[in-house]
Amino acid sequence: MNPSLKISQGGKLGVNSRVKLTAENLNKIYTPGVADIAEAIAKDEEKAYELTWKSRNVAIVSDGSAVLGLGNLGAEPALPIMEAKAVLFKELGGVDAVPLVLNTQDPREIVKIVEAVAPGFGGINLEDIAAPNCFFVEEQLKKSLKIPVFHDDQWGTAIVVLAGLINALKVVNKNRQMVKAVISGAGAAGIAIARLLLEFGFGNIIIFDSQGPLAKGRKDMNKEKKELALKTNPENFKGTLREALFKADIFVGVSRAKLLNSQDIKKMNKRAIVFALANPTPEIMPEAAKKGGAEIIATGRSDFPNQINNALVFPGLFKGALASRTSLIDNKLKIKIAESLAALVQNPTSAKIIPKVMDKKVPRAIAACF
Amino acid sequence: MNPSLKISQGGKLGVNSRVKLTAENLNKIYTPGVADIAEAIAKDEEKAYELTWKSRNVAIVSDGSAVLGLGNLGAEPALPIMEAKAVLFKELGGVDAVPLVLNTQDPREIVKIVEAVAPGFGGINLEDIAAPNCFFVEEQLKKSLKIPVFHDDQWGTAIVVLAGLINALKVVNKNRQMVKAVISGAGAAGIAIARLLLEFGFGNIIIFDSQGPLAKGRKDMNKEKKELALKTNPENFKGTLREALFKADIFVGVSRAKLLNSQDIKKMNKRAIVFALANPTPEIMPEAAKKGGAEIIATGRSDFPNQINNALVFPGLFKGALASRTSLIDNKLKIKIAESLAALVQNPTSAKIIPKVMDKKVPRAIAACF
Repeated sequence: MNPSLKISQGGKLGVNSRVKLTAENLNKIYTPGVADIAEAIAKDEEKAYELTWKSRNVAIVSDGSAVLGLGNLGAEPALPIMEAKAVLFKELGGVDAVPLVLNTQDPREIVKIVEAVAPGFGGINLEDIAAPNCFFVEEQLKKSLKIPVFHDDQWGTAIVVLAGLINALKVVNKNRQMVKAVISGAGAAGIAIARLLLEFGFGNIIIFDSQGPLAKGRKDMNKEKKELALKTNPENFKGTLREALFKADIFVGVSRAKLLNSQDIKKMNKRAIVFALANPTPEIMPEAAKKGGAEIIATGRSDFPNQINNALVFPGLFKGALASRTSLIDNKLKIKIAESLAALVQNPTSAKIIPKVMDKKVPRAIAACF
Repeated sequence: MNPSLKISQGGKLGVNSRVKLTAENLNKIYTPGVADIAEAIAKDEEKAYELTWKSRNVAIVSDGSAVLGLGNLGAEPALPIMEAKAVLFKELGGVDAVPLVLNTQDPREIVKIVEAVAPGFGGINLEDIAAPNCFFVEEQLKKSLKIPVFHDDQWGTAIVVLAGLINALKVVNKNRQMVKAVISGAGAAGIAIARLLLEFGFGNIIIFDSQGPLAKGRKDMNKEKKELALKTNPENFKGTLREALFKADIFVGVSRAKLLNSQDIKKMNKRAIVFALANPTPEIMPEAAKKGGAEIIATGRSDFPNQINNALVFPGLFKGALASRTSLIDNKLKIKIAESLAALVQNPTSAKIIPKVMDKKVPRAIAACF
């Protein structure tokens, strides 16, 4: 049997009671005693943080419209991924997380549903919701809810990519303001990476979607792409991705498998940085990127060096947000988290620009940013 | 500190991982391995029962509109009760249950929300939703979902009441077809109790709401009351509750505290059965009912004999429904469960008509009804 299927037999998640139920305490845990807790919270809603699991509890919400790199599979197929995330939340961050996979992909309905279930949760982790709906859903929920809302495919990825690039630039001794970065993919991850890199001061970014580079005047772009077209692509380049790689210093792929070959990488500047993050098959395999002359190569996979893995961020991020009752996770905070993550690698090398997911220092360092 | 508040510090519930996360199995639990599980479920949705926690997982859904006997307190105050129920689900039935308290009391919205979150759950336990919305919500969800939907305040209560009455009638040696039963309260519990008693063959039932007895021709009744008015109150009695107790054999109160006194009970037939179930303060205290001549007295409380407690039913009921993949819990099955529950008390006496919640035989016997 496939080892992943084997380890998931019967599911990976459970609910547990933190109190031992006995004949003696039944009336304190349940009726009539529990009425006192209900009344205490009715008097002061804030007490829900003290007297229920709300302060530790995150909803992992997905509509299954962008399941990993597999596409729009729907609710049930998204469930094992949300379960896996809940396992990481718990094991790495000590955060209780509950998967909620939704039988709708209407962004307005998703917003209403999350707003409705929010009272029982201390935070909302949005997951595997396709662009552009993910932008609308996150934006609306950030406005309407008083708890942290974080779309991990956007910001988890963007934070880890930035952390990796901070160290990669150190290794190749280049400056963020001077480098040319090409991003392939303008979905949830690509848009968020571009936004965060801009915020961090990257001077020259070109973003590609399947139709070509985001550029001023293009007619077929959504709101987010239009906004980024104004802030990126300073030379208003209109050629192909392959052409854009000419003299590029950084390639970040969050698009699709086997997009590039060694010849493409050869066109890049010396000491090139290649983040080929499509999952499970990257835009270019590390060996081919190396053959093309790339000095630093990262993928989304654990079987190669430099794994760019969201799991580096979300457990510690929610741990910190919940503990500090921070609801607004703004770009400044995201950059601080990326810098803390990068700083955990004391002497970055081409083979080691980012910590390992299982490194216990990671969630602690990230939670300490709050 | 209040002992209920003390035992609930930090909440009573947690999520736990059933797999040990290691550097070696991270790629099987999470990406890339989890993609295989998503694809397996995408090919065959049924696999979600095998490869996720769905087969063990129940959503406890409440809008907080009828929190215990406390009234419409809203979502957050309902949360500790749903947590307590989740503890009982787990400890008594081995069922994983997740509280979902909703920030809406619109029945159509509740239906939409539950339908949307349903893919992640093997069953839906509705809880503390006020009548008449609870009827609409349950009815709609039973039609639209393929998993068991059970409103515990209705049917959990009705099943335990029926079980208690089966044994009580044995003790007082009366026949269900011959007795006169007065039900006080025509909310979720009262309506469901009446429906189940009718189904079981009780011949003479009069149901009271705050306006008087349900009776043919009354103009101020909702759909459910109208339906019951046709099947109950055979003499079309129109007097008061106190008057109705004259020559009654059974009183079942699911209404409000301190409704009756000893004098009222004295009007009842010999060997009277009094179930005073308002929580936390019953319609009449056991001592007063005894003084009035009642032979069998039950309450909702654990500090008196004969506790009519929903917790006797829901853990075993969902355990059985999940294990057998039963989605329709019809009246026939409810009666079977009530009979099994009653049968656990081998020699019923006035002091013991119903098993204890902590009796491990209870959930096993109920699950075995499926």
